[in-house]
Amino acid sequence: MSFTEIEYDVADGVATITLNRPERLNAFTYVMRGELIEAFDRADADDGVRAVVVTGKGRAFCAGADLGGGGDTFNHRRSEEMFGGADTVDGSPRDGGGTVVLRIARSLKPVIGAINGPAVGVGVTMTLPMDVRLASDTARFGFVFARRGIVTEAASSWFLPRVVGISQAMEWAATGRVFPASEALEGRLVSKVLAPDELLPAAYALAREIAGNTSAVSVAAIRRLMWAGLSADSPWEAHRADSKLMHALGAAPDAAEGVTSFLEKRPAKFPMKVSTDLPDAVPDWPANPYGIS
Amino acid sequence: MSFTEIEYDVADGVATITLNRPERLNAFTYVMRGELIEAFDRADADDGVRAVVVTGKGRAFCAGADLGGGGDTFNHRRSEEMFGGADTVDGSPRDGGGTVVLRIARSLKPVIGAINGPAVGVGVTMTLPMDVRLASDTARFGFVFARRGIVTEAASSWFLPRVVGISQAMEWAATGRVFPASEALEGRLVSKVLAPDELLPAAYALAREIAGNTSAVSVAAIRRLMWAGLSADSPWEAHRADSKLMHALGAAPDAAEGVTSFLEKRPAKFPMKVSTDLPDAVPDWPANPYGIS
Amino acid sequence: MSFTEIEYDVADGVATITLNRPERLNAFTYVMRGELIEAFDRADADDGVRAVVVTGKGRAFCAGADLGGGGDTFNHRRSEEMFGGADTVDGSPRDGGGTVVLRIARSLKPVIGAINGPAVGVGVTMTLPMDVRLASDTARFGFVFARRGIVTEAASSWFLPRVVGISQAMEWAATGRVFPASEALEGRLVSKVLAPDELLPAAYALAREIAGNTSAVSVAAIRRLMWAGLSADSPWEAHRADSKLMHALGAAPDAAEGVTSFLEKRPAKFPMKVSTDLPDAVPDWPANPYGIS
Repeated sequence: MSFTEIEYDVADGVATITLNRPERLNAFTYVMRGELIEAFDRADADDGVRAVVVTGKGRAFCAGADLGGGGDTFNHRRSEEMFGGADTVDGSPRDGGGTVVLRIARSLKPVIGAINGPAVGVGVTMTLPMDVRLASDTARFGFVFARRGIVTEAASSWFLPRVVGISQAMEWAATGRVFPASEALEGRLVSKVLAPDELLPAAYALAREIAGNTSAVSVAAIRRLMWAGLSADSPWEAHRADSKLMHALGAAPDAAEGVTSFLEKRPAKFPMKVSTDLPDAVPDWPANPYGIS
Repeated sequence: MSFTEIEYDVADGVATITLNRPERLNAFTYVMRGELIEAFDRADADDGVRAVVVTGKGRAFCAGADLGGGGDTFNHRRSEEMFGGADTVDGSPRDGGGTVVLRIARSLKPVIGAINGPAVGVGVTMTLPMDVRLASDTARFGFVFARRGIVTEAASSWFLPRVVGISQAMEWAATGRVFPASEALEGRLVSKVLAPDELLPAAYALAREIAGNTSAVSVAAIRRLMWAGLSADSPWEAHRADSKLMHALGAAPDAAEGVTSFLEKRPAKFPMKVSTDLPDAVPDWPANPYGIS
Repeated sequence: MSFTEIEYDVADGVATITLNRPERLNAFTYVMRGELIEAFDRADADDGVRAVVVTGKGRAFCAGADLGGGGDTFNHRRSEEMFGGADTVDGSPRDGGGTVVLRIARSLKPVIGAINGPAVGVGVTMTLPMDVRLASDTARFGFVFARRGIVTEAASSWFLPRVVGISQAMEWAATGRVFPASEALEGRLVSKVLAPDELLPAAYALAREIAGNTSAVSVAAIRRLMWAGLSADSPWEAHRADSKLMHALGAAPDAAEGVTSFLEKRPAKFPMKVSTDLPDAVPDWPANPYGIS
């Protein structure tokens, strides 16, 4: 499969996914939806990828759903290009943005959003399951759904209040306001605001900090532990998962190398691979009762 | 029903609820409890109301429970005026503040607290299910329950750590400290601190930003999605709710108008009404196993 | 039982637990694990203790697991001194750090971390269930697990994203970076950074603010309500717990004294004791399905 609406490149241990419809401000389509999911599948399967950076081509990150369908854009019966296949949940066609964010939520590699320009609608909700969001000072953000007569989608009612707090989440979602990078930083939607030409370098520096110092298996297990932990009922549940993983990984080669290299004050060379060495005890998300991924 | 301990006014699409016992610093009573619930019922039923502002008359917001009962104030057997009716949960009389906050939590209209002076005890916990809290620089706050020999009530053990984080919540609740607006801002209990004469204008400006730009049905659905999402087990649960609502609302008139008006660069005129057009798919809070509202 | 790897002192209503292996930067061992649990048991049982301060002796707070076992440190089959007894969960030896944090999570007394130097690995995850963390400007922090080939343990996948937010949690855990007190403050891991000689005085001032003004029974009940509330399904669950406790405590002597002393503008003298007067209605954590404490 070759991509038409995104680009996918791997270099120096980092996969870069670039939204690639610059003439439409990288507006989201059903095709882009499928290509994003496929790209995260590739990144997870490739032991050469230690982190994923997501950015947009041209002056926008993603302007939201492509509104080429006009007033029928969100009308399932009339916008095949928006809704695509027959994939349903509980009798309704699955929300397209949701299928992307759930895939990102399960990623085994850390994901860094490098938000280079406007990120509106699904253009911003798709970034919520990413681990870190960095923004250019030219970025703008908007949870504009209430201004379009629809609702916060892409499971953002789960992610947004956990990422920025319920009060900030409700203020942005109830007003549908479009706001600058400075307000996103103040509200903790992004962790840093950078000059445009410093954005990708900062994203890659963070990716290299991960790739250059850590066990890939540890990071994959930690990412699952932490996100699923946000969904766990109590610390006792986390303790059970921890105990299994400390037991499995504590006796494995990466732990021996991690401790030995530290004691010898040298860089570690971790031998284990995500593709083959991830313990069974790595948790998946709980509570997916719908038979969907 | 006419109100005696609050005022309820509607103007320009905004309902204002004013706690109205200024001679008692708007101290909370069983009567006020019932009037607040009734006022939120009215606001939800009135399509002319797009947002609710809650404030206090005189120099206080709400000084907490009326302590007119002295040492027996919180003694259920001796303070009928505090506990009123026979409404119970699990064999105990229901906590009065809790009945108010659960009603606010289910509001279909966004709620803005305009905290104009001291907000102590139930005077502050009643604001936690509001979407945005703005404070005058004359406001003071106190989760003083441990200084009175009782506990953080009004479901604040659920709301407070989610609004300000568990560490800040525990520091305020374990000390029972009374603190100024600046500490409330630093701790993210309020989103802005304003001069006294700028408080209500700021609250109304925010209410008008909602009323003037958004679909009422979208905002009602989003408010339920977001708050219930904070309580949802996982993003898969949110995805299921999103999918149903995007399916229902995407084909409805507000979505057509929302997209069309945007493409035509004109203000939207949303035709749908909360009273008649809210989809069945709008979620209610999960996990209310007690048969109470 | 006398302690060998910690010190335990009680003065002025405050218990101080001092990690006491300064020659090893207070590195964590199986012995220290058991002594910490025992110390929290003592503090809970002693009505003379109103708050607990945890700090480290010498220049470190806790450098993490003692790596004396070299590459076998985390290998359960080879490091008896790390894993000790036959205590298991779900077939795996229980993670030692986890047994400590679960004990702290259930503490009936508020816990203040006074982080006087490096706090790395289990040295920092053990502080997450504490209510307040204060740091010396000489402190450094690191969730270094991914650099050692293991995972974030001590139920930190449950605590960390709730304390600092998921994005900050993932950035620290995926990089394994060691960072200064200023970054910990910015990321809300600690609430204050102080000069070294102001750290313990600040911790004791906070402890005295609790001890000097509040009902011990109220604080114990509130601590359980709030932490278990973070784990509760919905505010309806909190409302049920509140109603029971307001009913029980509202009619009890501390509430009478709390209100009466306030009305008489005098310091309260609360008669009730945690050891004997804690209502049955005080919640325990939900969802511990493993038969472990």
